[in-house]
Amino acid sequence: MKIIDGKLISTQLKEEIAKKVKHIVEKGKRPPHLAVIIVGEDGGSQVYVNNKIKACQLVGIKSTHIELPVETTENELLKRVYDLNNNTELDGFIVQLPLPKHINEQKIIEAISPEKDVDGFTPINIGKMVIGLDAYVPATPFGITELLRRYKIETAGKKVVVLGRSNIVGRPISILMSQKSDIGNATVTVCHSKTPDLMKITNQADILIAAIGVPEFVTADMVKKGVVIIDVGTTRVKSDQTKSGWKLKGDVKFDEVAEKAGLITPVPGGVGPMTIASLLYNTLLAYKKKQL
Amino acid sequence: MKIIDGKLISTQLKEEIAKKVKHIVEKGKRPPHLAVIIVGEDGGSQVYVNNKIKACQLVGIKSTHIELPVETTENELLKRVYDLNNNTELDGFIVQLPLPKHINEQKIIEAISPEKDVDGFTPINIGKMVIGLDAYVPATPFGITELLRRYKIETAGKKVVVLGRSNIVGRPISILMSQKSDIGNATVTVCHSKTPDLMKITNQADILIAAIGVPEFVTADMVKKGVVIIDVGTTRVKSDQTKSGWKLKGDVKFDEVAEKAGLITPVPGGVGPMTIASLLYNTLLAYKKKQL
Repeated sequence: MKIIDGKLISTQLKEEIAKKVKHIVEKGKRPPHLAVIIVGEDGGSQVYVNNKIKACQLVGIKSTHIELPVETTENELLKRVYDLNNNTELDGFIVQLPLPKHINEQKIIEAISPEKDVDGFTPINIGKMVIGLDAYVPATPFGITELLRRYKIETAGKKVVVLGRSNIVGRPISILMSQKSDIGNATVTVCHSKTPDLMKITNQADILIAAIGVPEFVTADMVKKGVVIIDVGTTRVKSDQTKSGWKLKGDVKFDEVAEKAGLITPVPGGVGPMTIASLLYNTLLAYKKKQL
Repeated sequence: MKIIDGKLISTQLKEEIAKKVKHIVEKGKRPPHLAVIIVGEDGGSQVYVNNKIKACQLVGIKSTHIELPVETTENELLKRVYDLNNNTELDGFIVQLPLPKHINEQKIIEAISPEKDVDGFTPINIGKMVIGLDAYVPATPFGITELLRRYKIETAGKKVVVLGRSNIVGRPISILMSQKSDIGNATVTVCHSKTPDLMKITNQADILIAAIGVPEFVTADMVKKGVVIIDVGTTRVKSDQTKSGWKLKGDVKFDEVAEKAGLITPVPGGVGPMTIASLLYNTLLAYKKKQL
């Protein structure tokens, strides 16, 4: 068994991005610029946003952090989105989710200009990805494809089983891996809560992607020897072994599955660290597209 | 074995649409209105377009047939598309494909207003369908879902194998059937030209959807007893048994597979007749959305 080291790969990816940004700035041009809007004071969201801003600083991407009070109305937020759409000095921006309940998330997402949609959540961006056109791949699926690429994991002709059909992970990764591409050409099966005989299906997988958010759901008897495991789950569970009183658990029972797996992503330190690197990558991409 | 009679179901669907249109007109309102643009004189396309126009007449939908010469430039066609986008007396329109080689098809499709995109080919429409929002389902996948619905074929918890990953059939039907919906909640596997051991996978299918365009590709040894077969293939092959010198063949070797199948669509008379009815359905839907 070998660990797929997401921390290492995300560091490499960030270094590559930093190098490219440096190159841009050395030529006398402005650096890529990302804005992050956060509404309200959800603790988890604030941590995520701060990490994104820090990562920007690390690689030399300019960032703008827009904090709006929880009372912000849908119209006020829409106006902010339009302002950012029209800001020619800005390459991409994201609206941190979840939003307060009085705001229609989908309406806000659909207001984002597709050119600046570096989260890849707008319908037009998803549609382009689905039909194989140039598109921003959302952070988690992009992170998974980068791990597969950089560990040179063969996907063509392989059986991939995806657990979970969410719009931000299961669905897009299942589509990407069945397309004609360097991390594609796999035979992909999407499983979900209504799938019976799950064990029979997961046992056929050459690559298993678990994205259901149920801690330690995947056990050793569910996979075949040598399988590649990508664990997207990150659920906080109570723990008396840590100072904080909790620890992160993946969707895979790591210890026992790792013994059978050929390659496996740990939690934490697997897919997680890749997501912010993916956002930086998309921001650089948005910058480059604007220069064309 | 029982035949899934697409001709019968499409007739029923058209009758239902005709009734609704009649109801609209009786209330003194204008009928739904579809426009079809065809560029050039491709024989196959002309037949398709004429059939669409005739079907409109049959159900009382107003139709406008726009024939443009093969020399039409991309810009001229774009201008036509913009005109139709802005025509408030028009509910939906389609641009018949393929277009002459000097015109970028994707550019034309992306110029169509999503509200009027009754073919469901624009990226924004595809993206909405993928994330489970209200969208126009393209004709062939819609036709398949209607056949499943009206024959009350259980899909939840079933294993569906889709042969083919095209943007207009294989991909959308695979997504639709794995979503939470009345014809969804299936465990879907998408197979394609890079899938090894195909027979092992197809033999697990409760429902097999063949959409690869290879005549008689699916043979009896590839399916299990009682399988539901949806055959999307329609390839013209030479025949000395018909006056025309050719006949339509599906992707399934009908005679031998029918003996094992529980339900099966014939070719012709299965999925084919559903596609035009689907277009009429989407046009009526576009009309209703405009009235909201």
